[in-house]
Amino acid sequence: MAHKFINEINPGETIDDIYMVTDPILRSTTRGDLYIAMYLSDRTGRLNGRMWQATEAVYNSLPKPGFVHIQGRSELYANNLQIVVNNVSVIDASKVNLDDFLARTDKDTDQMFEEVKKIVGQIKNPQLKALVGQFLADTELMEKFCKAPAAMKLHHSFLGGLLEHTHSMLRVAVAILPLYPQVQPDLVLAAIFLHDIGKTEELTYDMAFSYTDSGQLLGHITQTLLMINKKADALAAKGTPIDKSILDTLGHIILSHHGQYEFGSPKLPATPEAFMVYYIDDLDAKINQVTAAIDSETGDSNWTGWKNALQTKLYKKRIE
Amino acid sequence: MAHKFINEINPGETIDDIYMVTDPILRSTTRGDLYIAMYLSDRTGRLNGRMWQATEAVYNSLPKPGFVHIQGRSELYANNLQIVVNNVSVIDASKVNLDDFLARTDKDTDQMFEEVKKIVGQIKNPQLKALVGQFLADTELMEKFCKAPAAMKLHHSFLGGLLEHTHSMLRVAVAILPLYPQVQPDLVLAAIFLHDIGKTEELTYDMAFSYTDSGQLLGHITQTLLMINKKADALAAKGTPIDKSILDTLGHIILSHHGQYEFGSPKLPATPEAFMVYYIDDLDAKINQVTAAIDSETGDSNWTGWKNALQTKLYKKRIE
Amino acid sequence: MAHKFINEINPGETIDDIYMVTDPILRSTTRGDLYIAMYLSDRTGRLNGRMWQATEAVYNSLPKPGFVHIQGRSELYANNLQIVVNNVSVIDASKVNLDDFLARTDKDTDQMFEEVKKIVGQIKNPQLKALVGQFLADTELMEKFCKAPAAMKLHHSFLGGLLEHTHSMLRVAVAILPLYPQVQPDLVLAAIFLHDIGKTEELTYDMAFSYTDSGQLLGHITQTLLMINKKADALAAKGTPIDKSILDTLGHIILSHHGQYEFGSPKLPATPEAFMVYYIDDLDAKINQVTAAIDSETGDSNWTGWKNALQTKLYKKRIE
Amino acid sequence: MAHKFINEINPGETIDDIYMVTDPILRSTTRGDLYIAMYLSDRTGRLNGRMWQATEAVYNSLPKPGFVHIQGRSELYANNLQIVVNNVSVIDASKVNLDDFLARTDKDTDQMFEEVKKIVGQIKNPQLKALVGQFLADTELMEKFCKAPAAMKLHHSFLGGLLEHTHSMLRVAVAILPLYPQVQPDLVLAAIFLHDIGKTEELTYDMAFSYTDSGQLLGHITQTLLMINKKADALAAKGTPIDKSILDTLGHIILSHHGQYEFGSPKLPATPEAFMVYYIDDLDAKINQVTAAIDSETGDSNWTGWKNALQTKLYKKRIE
Amino acid sequence: MAHKFINEINPGETIDDIYMVTDPILRSTTRGDLYIAMYLSDRTGRLNGRMWQATEAVYNSLPKPGFVHIQGRSELYANNLQIVVNNVSVIDASKVNLDDFLARTDKDTDQMFEEVKKIVGQIKNPQLKALVGQFLADTELMEKFCKAPAAMKLHHSFLGGLLEHTHSMLRVAVAILPLYPQVQPDLVLAAIFLHDIGKTEELTYDMAFSYTDSGQLLGHITQTLLMINKKADALAAKGTPIDKSILDTLGHIILSHHGQYEFGSPKLPATPEAFMVYYIDDLDAKINQVTAAIDSETGDSNWTGWKNALQTKLYKKRIE
Amino acid sequence: MAHKFINEINPGETIDDIYMVTDPILRSTTRGDLYIAMYLSDRTGRLNGRMWQATEAVYNSLPKPGFVHIQGRSELYANNLQIVVNNVSVIDASKVNLDDFLARTDKDTDQMFEEVKKIVGQIKNPQLKALVGQFLADTELMEKFCKAPAAMKLHHSFLGGLLEHTHSMLRVAVAILPLYPQVQPDLVLAAIFLHDIGKTEELTYDMAFSYTDSGQLLGHITQTLLMINKKADALAAKGTPIDKSILDTLGHIILSHHGQYEFGSPKLPATPEAFMVYYIDDLDAKINQVTAAIDSETGDSNWTGWKNALQTKLYKKRIE
Repeated sequence: MAHKFINEINPGETIDDIYMVTDPILRSTTRGDLYIAMYLSDRTGRLNGRMWQATEAVYNSLPKPGFVHIQGRSELYANNLQIVVNNVSVIDASKVNLDDFLARTDKDTDQMFEEVKKIVGQIKNPQLKALVGQFLADTELMEKFCKAPAAMKLHHSFLGGLLEHTHSMLRVAVAILPLYPQVQPDLVLAAIFLHDIGKTEELTYDMAFSYTDSGQLLGHITQTLLMINKKADALAAKGTPIDKSILDTLGHIILSHHGQYEFGSPKLPATPEAFMVYYIDDLDAKINQVTAAIDSETGDSNWTGWKNALQTKLYKKRIE
Repeated sequence: MAHKFINEINPGETIDDIYMVTDPILRSTTRGDLYIAMYLSDRTGRLNGRMWQATEAVYNSLPKPGFVHIQGRSELYANNLQIVVNNVSVIDASKVNLDDFLARTDKDTDQMFEEVKKIVGQIKNPQLKALVGQFLADTELMEKFCKAPAAMKLHHSFLGGLLEHTHSMLRVAVAILPLYPQVQPDLVLAAIFLHDIGKTEELTYDMAFSYTDSGQLLGHITQTLLMINKKADALAAKGTPIDKSILDTLGHIILSHHGQYEFGSPKLPATPEAFMVYYIDDLDAKINQVTAAIDSETGDSNWTGWKNALQTKLYKKRIE
Repeated sequence: MAHKFINEINPGETIDDIYMVTDPILRSTTRGDLYIAMYLSDRTGRLNGRMWQATEAVYNSLPKPGFVHIQGRSELYANNLQIVVNNVSVIDASKVNLDDFLARTDKDTDQMFEEVKKIVGQIKNPQLKALVGQFLADTELMEKFCKAPAAMKLHHSFLGGLLEHTHSMLRVAVAILPLYPQVQPDLVLAAIFLHDIGKTEELTYDMAFSYTDSGQLLGHITQTLLMINKKADALAAKGTPIDKSILDTLGHIILSHHGQYEFGSPKLPATPEAFMVYYIDDLDAKINQVTAAIDSETGDSNWTGWKNALQTKLYKKRIE
Repeated sequence: MAHKFINEINPGETIDDIYMVTDPILRSTTRGDLYIAMYLSDRTGRLNGRMWQATEAVYNSLPKPGFVHIQGRSELYANNLQIVVNNVSVIDASKVNLDDFLARTDKDTDQMFEEVKKIVGQIKNPQLKALVGQFLADTELMEKFCKAPAAMKLHHSFLGGLLEHTHSMLRVAVAILPLYPQVQPDLVLAAIFLHDIGKTEELTYDMAFSYTDSGQLLGHITQTLLMINKKADALAAKGTPIDKSILDTLGHIILSHHGQYEFGSPKLPATPEAFMVYYIDDLDAKINQVTAAIDSETGDSNWTGWKNALQTKLYKKRIE
Repeated sequence: MAHKFINEINPGETIDDIYMVTDPILRSTTRGDLYIAMYLSDRTGRLNGRMWQATEAVYNSLPKPGFVHIQGRSELYANNLQIVVNNVSVIDASKVNLDDFLARTDKDTDQMFEEVKKIVGQIKNPQLKALVGQFLADTELMEKFCKAPAAMKLHHSFLGGLLEHTHSMLRVAVAILPLYPQVQPDLVLAAIFLHDIGKTEELTYDMAFSYTDSGQLLGHITQTLLMINKKADALAAKGTPIDKSILDTLGHIILSHHGQYEFGSPKLPATPEAFMVYYIDDLDAKINQVTAAIDSETGDSNWTGWKNALQTKLYKKRIE
Repeated sequence: MAHKFINEINPGETIDDIYMVTDPILRSTTRGDLYIAMYLSDRTGRLNGRMWQATEAVYNSLPKPGFVHIQGRSELYANNLQIVVNNVSVIDASKVNLDDFLARTDKDTDQMFEEVKKIVGQIKNPQLKALVGQFLADTELMEKFCKAPAAMKLHHSFLGGLLEHTHSMLRVAVAILPLYPQVQPDLVLAAIFLHDIGKTEELTYDMAFSYTDSGQLLGHITQTLLMINKKADALAAKGTPIDKSILDTLGHIILSHHGQYEFGSPKLPATPEAFMVYYIDDLDAKINQVTAAIDSETGDSNWTGWKNALQTKLYKKRIE
């Protein structure tokens, strides 16, 4: 049975479907009865839910957040649609069709990943090749790499976003590296492939996009560096260590790829390769962010609303 | 007769050649005799010059700065080489081989300009095509465009630097535009071609690189905008006006292409095309600046000296 | 018939008058019926309007924004006054008394403009005199100059504000120029007269205050510079060109009159005249902004609310 | 006997005159003999002085810095003029013509002070009038007020500079206050008169311009506030206390008159009067600083050297 | 009778108790009847109050803000609890149990003050000892010192907070001064004792925490300095003046103890003692602010909400 | 034979001793003869060295930088002492008394290290205890820890500085932790012990203080984190893994201990422990830096020279 999307619900309908519950709160009415206020959502929107005559046991059973099967009814209250919940039961995330709850790249994930592998396959330096191979061989990690978003909000914030962003950056690099012969392609390609790999540990994206504790405490830049060093340790344990100077040069590109201290880079770019990765990353992220913002505001105006991260409105009108 | 370069002069030689004189000062010795102190230079270096028993008339005749024919002798004074000038006569700049005095791109100017014309020839929008054509048809301006440096100091600061920088940016744009189908290629190509055209008025580069009064008062961003508007007025006078919205959209890319207020952009990028031109400009300038800095420091150290504009040293060592 | 002002409407009244409609949206009720939500406003305030049983044709006919004749009825809904619209027809702006919709200077516009002309009539330099004359002779532009606001929000944001601000600045300049004999009065007076003339193109103020596309893309500083250059071109075409150095010196004052890069000035003040215009502009704007803020908060407190643009509250108590 | 100015000394002359000695150091030659290195200066310049065969007693007798009578001889050493000192004796500052050592306003001090008194005589509020009177009656302080510089370096850095700057600001205020009727003139005039009075304690200017310990530890803004409060205490002791609210409103203008935290103002302007005093102060200081910089660079160039405090060069060319 | 706390009121109850009224406004209904809207609060929360059929006389009688005896009834309106006021009479603050209205330190005030006196009793320098004694002897001031909060919001914002913060800082100083023998303990202890004493004049805390006019105009740093100078004047009047250099060194610590210009310090730390006081102040404030924020967010999450002043969320999970 | 210190050499002496050579350059005289210019130094100073009639072979043999045995003669040239080198031979660093070349803590290293071990011995959490034990058991690393400087320049820039700084911070923590019972002592002590351990890899200090390539590319914050993770991996390999949440909480303190992005911290403090370590680090560093600066300027002035890193001069005068 197809999922009934939040933005398709009319007042007065019977509800019998799976939704994500967030921020449930147990409250007492002014008469002392307990009830649960909660949000019910999928990727199309969010409604208030109310379960009257609730018990503390029901409240305690609820995931915070998580998936629940809801039986109840929609109604208009003070001009807003809400769902009166009669019955609620917890659903394991594995039984849920995640696509109903999280936005997803509209590109072909498999094809992008094949192209990524093909591009990093061009790396000639045997040590960087081995290091990249170590990551590609980690199938569990590669699955996360293909599934993670590239960011919480600003750009490529959808499932597969990390892969789409990395794939796009690699294609830009392949296109412009021949124009800058002084820049070492192996370093650029390996660094782009790995630059945000720590996002797989910084973010969770099984039900909604949020930060892990580790991600919040360390940040993906540091997490990426730790992951690279673990893979290098594994290679060394196999008897094929990576030169410290290569590892540090690669690590430097990771540390400096936000380009400025204020954006969480503990080092400023100090090699041509670090500058190139920084600019390709910023270019790809901003073009995605700007075109997505323009596409999402469909009104008549020539301008989008104010974009705080860019400190401007965006102009939507095209020439011709 | 080949020019005797400053860095080839030994003490005790007879000097009879053309040099640039800068900052001449008329001074009196403690005994009351007049003499002229000056710098004599070409593109390989600069020496002190001294003309004893000078007159005010000779001093007044000197360009400040300009080219002079010097007759005299080199000598060591307090461990430094200097030139004792017996005779000085002013030389018109047209009779001077400028290559002895100013650094010059090592790329083929004609070939680059042909490629530039070919790339902007791809512009399909008839109004932008007409506007670009108006510039290409201005042969005097195009000569300057092929000759001007791209900046006083930081990047591409040599004759032909503006062309080399513009050419390189156009090639990057051609390479990556297919990867960003939402970005309008005509606007990007026209904007790159014109983005620094005002440098032809901001800078002088007939004897040395410096700012014109107009360049210092208005800056090349404003000068570029004024030049574009004059060409558009000329087109309108011919009966083929450019839509105001196209002209403003193009103008916006020019005004915002430094990306930040602190770098003299009075507007922040507000279109995908403006973001793309900003990043391509910054990428190309920084890669040139960084690789030139690395190439120019030939010592054994793995690091260059501190680069204030980048707030770091640069790492020179390559992998493998 | 006198206009019924928004802040005079009581619940339960019949409405039959002209208002400005903004942000109309066509929505469907949960039963699938179409209705239009809109704002209806004049200069005294804004109410929600609802037109039930609307059609797409009616929605399409509405200006976004613009003036409409409304027939309907006021009612209280959830404690707020709203207007139920039975009939709506578009009204041409030329038939509307603009004073009902936009705030206006309480000074005498004609008298201020006469004084402005008298003050700039003191300019002696023939070229600056000719340039200023070129503007004064452009009656269409001078009408806009007398009508435009000086800013969207912060200071002099009312019809006639640009004139009032320019007039006040000129009077300050006349008062203090004798105290600074090194400062060239002609430059200061011409620059003040023209400093914000681009606001006539940056802003619209026929129905409400907003930015034009051109204003948002280029900004009034650049627009002012383009206007000055067009007038100078016109003079040159008449055979009385303006010296480039005078034009650039004046242009520099325009470009630098915000005093800091962060405020959109692409150049910092580099002449005594540029510093004087910058300070007079800032002084006049801030005194207007501060006294207007104090006047508009009539409560008992000695302090206004927090003013974000000034990063402080303002102290209202006067000594006596 | 007229003072022999430093910039008039030729090599080989007998020296027998008063100079300021600064930074004397007792050194031993490589043979172990003691000698004293020192600077000798007046307001026209500074030369190295060397006293060979010196003793520790002579060194100890020298002021650091202070005035000394020098007997010796000028000579050229390594192309620089220096003074070989045979005899040195300490001179009391009271016996020195200070004008030989410190720059001084070229305006008439008495006349300026008379005008200052006349302008602040217009203050009508009896409490502010009494407070200002308290300062005017402090003849010792008023002498310092007429003698102190307005700053160490940037503007009005000459004897009488504080008076000249205050006088000029008061004249600007008198000229523009009628244009801003909402601004309370008594507060503005009193605040300008007193705004930098703490400079009399922040700076020393008996031999050279430098900071007092107290000035460096507290700063003139705080010192001014303390002085105002002492005078108010004195008035209160006489039975004519000043209202706390008036004292605080005046104090606020003093504290905020640098306009920004970064410039040492612990409060931002929060009254119209505070804004007016801030702008008049900045305007007067900058016009003085800019015109002085332009006047002091007499070369042919249209531009001065780079002014770090203004982040620009200054354009010297006047129109026509 | 125990106070009925705001967060204990249910709908439909009779109200007959004392509350604080803030921001009362006299409004007319759409029918022209007058009513008063107001907030009613105590330290547990705030509700809307409505008095229908009000008169201007009643409105005028209300304190703005202040304590009132309210007779009326609670009711639900649009899902929110509000109080319908039948009768309101003004109550003098002296008759109110302040603890119902303002949070208070949970430490023993008397004991903390005893320890403070004991610690500053260790000061050996006779002048600093005398100065501190002058403050301790001012019983009215010491009462305020024991009662004032340390800040409006960020840290120690409760009655007794200033004492608690000062006490804690003194204990830190006593603990670490032995580890830094170069730092002069007398200066550090005196400066800590006095560093925020101006808060007793900057803030009001009789009914709610807010700024005095004087506090807003001058700020507690300046107010502290003025208070110290008054006490020093009093000592001088008694014939035991304090050396200016000691007073200025102490004053400097006060002026610079916020450590940065942006935080309202007009001077940057320039002595070891100034650095130590700055760091101890910041350490104690931040630890209090952070632990209070963590304690106040009792939910399941490992993280608090976003803390704007700290630009981060806080991690609540403890190791064990 | 005692080392002849650079600051003890007089002109005309025979030189036969070990010095550090830096920046040797092979140059040709104007007659075409080769010579080597170099600096010769020890911890008391640096002189120019000249080796005339040098060969390329000798130049190639020189360390850049490193220790050499010099035979030659001192002479005065243009008023400066220089060393004419007749013979130069390379010396292995192991044969050099490092104390002649590098400044060293004047505290007892062994005793400080014992106290450090004793303090971190108080850690109770078994996992943190095990992790710290892993570091203490790494004798090679502990030797470096006892020998490294704490910084290149600003504070504790001498051999043993890292230990002295860490030791002092631990003592401060032990003193104040009892005053802040909410702060977890185990985390604070472990984090302080390890906070700068990466300096052992960031800096070299065998001949002079400089950065390693790795230090420059990654920085000591990242290097510390990598070292902690390696030790944790080693523990995990032994079957006693550290909880990820403990490792991340500790890692967060390391990453954030510079307190601000501009100082290279990629994360801002988000736990009470992170704030405490940040403040103790900054306090200890600044007190050391300030008192060292005051001690090193022994002149009569009450003030040191301008300290750029602190943006102020420092006041040297003590009270009484």
